[in-house]
Amino acid sequence: MTFKFELIKECKDTGARVGKLFTPHGIIETPVFMPVGTQATVKTLSPEELETLGAQIILSNTYHLYLRPGHELIKQAGGLHKFMNWNKPILTDSGGFQVFSLGDLRTVKEDGVEFRSHIDGSKHFFTPEKVIEIENALGADIIMAFDECVPYPCDYEYAQKALERTTRWAERCKTAHQREDQALFGIIQGGAYQDLREQSAKEITSLDFPGYAIGGLSVGEPKEIMYEVLEYTTPLMPKEKPRYLMGVGAPDNVVEGIMRGIDMFDCVLPTRIARNGTVMTKRGKLVVRNAGYAKDLSPLDSECSCYTCQNYSRAYIRHLLKANEIFGLRLTSIHNLHFLIALVKEIRESILENRFLEFREEFYEHYGEI
Amino acid sequence: MTFKFELIKECKDTGARVGKLFTPHGIIETPVFMPVGTQATVKTLSPEELETLGAQIILSNTYHLYLRPGHELIKQAGGLHKFMNWNKPILTDSGGFQVFSLGDLRTVKEDGVEFRSHIDGSKHFFTPEKVIEIENALGADIIMAFDECVPYPCDYEYAQKALERTTRWAERCKTAHQREDQALFGIIQGGAYQDLREQSAKEITSLDFPGYAIGGLSVGEPKEIMYEVLEYTTPLMPKEKPRYLMGVGAPDNVVEGIMRGIDMFDCVLPTRIARNGTVMTKRGKLVVRNAGYAKDLSPLDSECSCYTCQNYSRAYIRHLLKANEIFGLRLTSIHNLHFLIALVKEIRESILENRFLEFREEFYEHYGEI
Repeated sequence: MTFKFELIKECKDTGARVGKLFTPHGIIETPVFMPVGTQATVKTLSPEELETLGAQIILSNTYHLYLRPGHELIKQAGGLHKFMNWNKPILTDSGGFQVFSLGDLRTVKEDGVEFRSHIDGSKHFFTPEKVIEIENALGADIIMAFDECVPYPCDYEYAQKALERTTRWAERCKTAHQREDQALFGIIQGGAYQDLREQSAKEITSLDFPGYAIGGLSVGEPKEIMYEVLEYTTPLMPKEKPRYLMGVGAPDNVVEGIMRGIDMFDCVLPTRIARNGTVMTKRGKLVVRNAGYAKDLSPLDSECSCYTCQNYSRAYIRHLLKANEIFGLRLTSIHNLHFLIALVKEIRESILENRFLEFREEFYEHYGEI
Repeated sequence: MTFKFELIKECKDTGARVGKLFTPHGIIETPVFMPVGTQATVKTLSPEELETLGAQIILSNTYHLYLRPGHELIKQAGGLHKFMNWNKPILTDSGGFQVFSLGDLRTVKEDGVEFRSHIDGSKHFFTPEKVIEIENALGADIIMAFDECVPYPCDYEYAQKALERTTRWAERCKTAHQREDQALFGIIQGGAYQDLREQSAKEITSLDFPGYAIGGLSVGEPKEIMYEVLEYTTPLMPKEKPRYLMGVGAPDNVVEGIMRGIDMFDCVLPTRIARNGTVMTKRGKLVVRNAGYAKDLSPLDSECSCYTCQNYSRAYIRHLLKANEIFGLRLTSIHNLHFLIALVKEIRESILENRFLEFREEFYEHYGEI
């Protein structure tokens, strides 16, 4: 097994920690933010740009790639790394969250989830075995077990049923998973109920996966609830395994997640808001599309060292966005990914230098929500 | 004056020639294809990518930049080069062709052209003096005189009226032009009438511009007509000055233009068809969006050395295009610009090595129209 997690440092005041994740396509320094490349591309960017930004691993979506262009084609191409020309680590989700998000288009059964494609309405059936078959074909370094995600709020009975099914599906995923060069992570569910998270953590960790994720957060709950769930859930996850908080990437969520012991994050937020003309800064968000920036010749963030801020003005970027020019979307996407990746890197250093809480305090001094 | 043209070599069998154009932002080896960056960006690409592609000079559109974001802002930013982060030569057109293309939205008067913005319908008036003021503010290395472009077909009387007005406007442009670091080129009009082209060439060249363009071609005429006009017009243009064929960039048009003595070309064709999923190859066009390429793991063009062909398959590119992923547009744009720039470079070498006609013959052996 080429997969290994090394815990390098733990913060003495909080749950924050620093580690290294060894994968077949390279070493990942944790904590880490993973840009999302849903359809085998991180929207607007090239693999080389991602590497320059310091991206260590990207996430891609099993549901989307299964529907288009199809996992068999990607397998024929030599796997997702080759297909998309990204030679560093990749994580694929299981499609659990994606099919859950389809709402009326899907029916959950004990064996799996029946759903209709959001592209052409065609009928499909995801079982744990099918999902593993697809993820094996895609060939990511880290793959996720098929889970049942519940919304917020969600009644207790349903949350319990879903977490128990998630456990049964996790077992089936483990049995179906064959490739030794891919690490299969289990997912803890249980909604916002402490005893259910405890039950799920116990059941899932008993299956001994090389890493564990917390699913079912960032699904509409207030952030205080998210932090609360993290507070009582991460201590139930083995210290010596990586901990991944799925679908979370707002800067303050990342700071708080790391403080509560999370090692890995992914989120479409930075690239999605970038394409809407909103950029992240340490002083909160800046809507560069706004008319107020039409003649502003300063960079998006004067303290930022990214390609965008080193070479272009707010006025130029706003012009591109107003004129529907793609290069504008590239520039804001680069800036936002740089911001999050650099933020996580700074946090990592602060943990290593025993000053994580000071860093957090400084962060909140200027931070306006995004 | 930092502008100079050096004629290096003339083909002994045809009008083809090789030269060097000295500008404040660098030397351009001619013949040259100029990618078009209408709105201060060559669609989908970064300046660094353009440089890697071998782009020596780009064209930008005065009409568009005047309307949005406004030439005053660009002047404040330190000029177009700084505004868009492109430190090599730039040529700006005069807006003549653009306002002509507005059809019912414009009225030509002796003093200038009244038109409505295609963006918000607001009223504007371009005179030769106004256009030069805008081009001076933008600060391109080469700027074009304000001309009146006529369509094809066009009756003789109107074509003559337009060319004579173009001459009067050229004089006014020359008088208005103040910056010594910008070379103002005159434009020869006259439709598809030999005597009118002769009249225009005589009048415009008598004004002694540092370079001359042929306007009013690629406006709907059959290509045989275009070649005929070139055949009798280029010999009327001084040998020691660069000759620019405006708005032309189909591969065969470029080969034929160079054979008839043209040094400079610009066209939106390569980037526009790229965004529609059509790519250029020496065997003609390839519509990579087509279903037939869905499982094709070979590159767009197996003989091509561009970034796209070195790293990505037709299947991947088609997937991106079908999934509306911007990176797909980048990959096809890179390929097409590489194709045209490399084609012109190969032609240049063939002229230097006294084998231009052989090169042309080989080109047509495989070439299917684009």
